[in-house]
Amino acid sequence: MSTTSRAPHLSWGPIALVAVGGAFGAAGREGVSLAIPNLGDVPIAIPVVNIIGAFLLGYLYEAVTRLEATPAKNLKLLLGTGFCGGFTTYSSLATDTAVLFRDDHAWSAIGYALGTVIIGAIATWLGILIASAINNSRSKATS
Amino acid sequence: MSTTSRAPHLSWGPIALVAVGGAFGAAGREGVSLAIPNLGDVPIAIPVVNIIGAFLLGYLYEAVTRLEATPAKNLKLLLGTGFCGGFTTYSSLATDTAVLFRDDHAWSAIGYALGTVIIGAIATWLGILIASAINNSRSKATS
Repeated sequence: MSTTSRAPHLSWGPIALVAVGGAFGAAGREGVSLAIPNLGDVPIAIPVVNIIGAFLLGYLYEAVTRLEATPAKNLKLLLGTGFCGGFTTYSSLATDTAVLFRDDHAWSAIGYALGTVIIGAIATWLGILIASAINNSRSKATS
Repeated sequence: MSTTSRAPHLSWGPIALVAVGGAFGAAGREGVSLAIPNLGDVPIAIPVVNIIGAFLLGYLYEAVTRLEATPAKNLKLLLGTGFCGGFTTYSSLATDTAVLFRDDHAWSAIGYALGTVIIGAIATWLGILIASAINNSRSKATS
């Protein structure tokens, strides 16, 4: 098949990397969901994958963000945008929050949504700190 | 290849459906991200896909949730857990929030995180309401 007609601004390579990472991420999320049952009305598996994914993306953001070479960019697309993006999910967080509200569990809904956002931001922060500490100890070792 | 050695509790079929949906969802998210540039420090594409995905999952949740047949369950796995899960992402929301905080944009961070959660829950709710209205008008038409 000829590729000469492809417009230069279309980036099929990055999109394919994200798709492959997203497939593995989403499959991993479903695996965790099948392994961890709901706690009453609250689906525990979704906050667990979201917080693990937030930590991983924070780590990756800091570990890879200073590298500008093509392999590092591809790694960000495959593991960050693809895997972490597919592993974590915002739509389930929103739907579970809305359904808890509908079923008159307003406090559970608020605790679930705010708790995920706050703990997720802390997990991301931890990921950034750990990657930064590893980066610093490496640059000290090589200087 | 023989499948007789497969333990009955392993659910490779559902995981494969989720992986396929997740690949298309993540690819779609990357496509939207390439099309919509950041607004200053805030990545507009991520809240846009998250809110669209929340609406879609809310719609799907209500439209398909009452059906118990296998095709409906497969549709939920492919489009809900897979596509909507891969299209939306929680890890970017968490990382962008943490990075805005780190860069001393605390109010932007709080507005970004809370705004996404509140607008996403409303979008889910709209999706549920629209699917419910369509369901009701269909059951009136057939009764």
